[in-house]
Amino acid sequence: MDQVKIFTPASVANVSCGFDVLGFCLDSIGDVMKVSRTKNKGVTIGIINGQELPKDPLKNVASVAASALLKAHPTIGGFQIDIEKRIKPGSGIGSSAASAAGAVFAINELLGKPYSRNELVQYAIAGESLASGAAHADNLAPVLLGGFTLVRSNKTLDIIKLPSPKDLVATIIHPKIELKTIHSRAILKNEIPLKKAVEQWGNLGAFISALYTNDYELLSRSMKDKVIEPTRAILIPKYKEIKQAAIDTGALGSGISGSGPSIYALSKGEFAAKEVGQAMKTYYDEIGLDYEVHYSNINNEGVRVL
Amino acid sequence: MDQVKIFTPASVANVSCGFDVLGFCLDSIGDVMKVSRTKNKGVTIGIINGQELPKDPLKNVASVAASALLKAHPTIGGFQIDIEKRIKPGSGIGSSAASAAGAVFAINELLGKPYSRNELVQYAIAGESLASGAAHADNLAPVLLGGFTLVRSNKTLDIIKLPSPKDLVATIIHPKIELKTIHSRAILKNEIPLKKAVEQWGNLGAFISALYTNDYELLSRSMKDKVIEPTRAILIPKYKEIKQAAIDTGALGSGISGSGPSIYALSKGEFAAKEVGQAMKTYYDEIGLDYEVHYSNINNEGVRVL
Repeated sequence: MDQVKIFTPASVANVSCGFDVLGFCLDSIGDVMKVSRTKNKGVTIGIINGQELPKDPLKNVASVAASALLKAHPTIGGFQIDIEKRIKPGSGIGSSAASAAGAVFAINELLGKPYSRNELVQYAIAGESLASGAAHADNLAPVLLGGFTLVRSNKTLDIIKLPSPKDLVATIIHPKIELKTIHSRAILKNEIPLKKAVEQWGNLGAFISALYTNDYELLSRSMKDKVIEPTRAILIPKYKEIKQAAIDTGALGSGISGSGPSIYALSKGEFAAKEVGQAMKTYYDEIGLDYEVHYSNINNEGVRVL
Repeated sequence: MDQVKIFTPASVANVSCGFDVLGFCLDSIGDVMKVSRTKNKGVTIGIINGQELPKDPLKNVASVAASALLKAHPTIGGFQIDIEKRIKPGSGIGSSAASAAGAVFAINELLGKPYSRNELVQYAIAGESLASGAAHADNLAPVLLGGFTLVRSNKTLDIIKLPSPKDLVATIIHPKIELKTIHSRAILKNEIPLKKAVEQWGNLGAFISALYTNDYELLSRSMKDKVIEPTRAILIPKYKEIKQAAIDTGALGSGISGSGPSIYALSKGEFAAKEVGQAMKTYYDEIGLDYEVHYSNINNEGVRVL
């Protein structure tokens, strides 16, 4: 096989109580990548459609991740990556993770799958570090493994795939302002109150229990963020109102997607998710702020060959 | 029924990564209580064997908890509580929780079970607050529900029973120094680094996932405490050496039981748990510090009628 075309999905990280550790994979939005073997060594970026992204292989997230993999697994010749970029960078739904994970997944396919999906995280993270200024796997993990994932340790990349209750549907609203992860990370405080931390890990533990037991009510009660949201909410126009509207309309919970500015909600069933989306967008309609709304099932497979 | 005799077990709270939220119930050690209906109103403390405890109903944990229940559920006459206290107060294995939970459980039995075990937590907590100076349910929850429990919220007492992998055996070593919860709580810092908090909730999430999947290796990797242990370890003689000895001898993990001074370890199987206990106690033998060692299966039932 000399060429492979893949779908590499968007994802939601942080997920209320799970800052830096919890994420889930989306299905209805993602990039398409075509990766081809070349005679020349190294990784080059070919066509990029949809967004303005660097073509310099040292500055593009996909090629940086691909090069990290090839450093560990040298091979004859090189690779060209063509990208149809549908996920907007800086939107908060794992744009860079999709590129990094997609690149290493595609090359692993062309190499005859020397690595498991879990093992690919260690290479994809090189690309993610370039984009966000810190090595976090909470978007990469759901893209590569699918479903809900927990990063037990960002140091050792100990990653656990969690079960996904089948009726969960995500609503994502993306207000069209750009927010770089590196900036929304900078405003976080280095120290947090122990009391808040205890509430947060109580909620995270309950959220994970709820995934195993399909307990939608417990899931809903545990979708709280006492630590990060209060600081970051100010960066997102109408955040509080939109979150409240989602919950009032029947969402199980709502929060900042990744480091924002997208806001996500989880609902039980597609009908509920769509009602939630209708309620959320009225706030941006009112103030005339451009936005996009996505509805998606939880993608239990992750990145895949097309 | 005018009288009931119960076994109310010891428990381990905090459990490494689960400060203030996680606990499990022991089987081989606990108090025996006899609660009898009396003609006079109110709750009195009758015989106390085994330990010096206050007989003043306003100062005894069992009667304070019992009175909280009776305030919500008035009845004719009153109750006398006789206690055979086998769990030493201040040992770190839920002495006060056993008293408080036992009292409300026994009276609930005599009243014809108007409350579920989960509902009893709200009354038992009155006794626990008296003992520890703060309303925490992380010992009460395992005593009342059995097995492993998670307190999602100490405010609303939202408590989840978690599964217990069947081969887990606990080793507890109790060095005979007394450490009041109220004192070991006082030395904790009010603020903790966000980075450590993230590691902690990554570990707690993984620990809970491991309970659902019987993944002993993941359980072992997640039994870490980056937040509380570094501060409290200095209160317990030879803590670091004993914990390391437990792990080197094959324990899945080891940590401070509750707020100490007891140290717990979890192992796979009874043979391993006993070897771990042998290794742990050598350090107290060396320095001539008196101690007790307990071995126990996880008690999946909790407090029970004898």
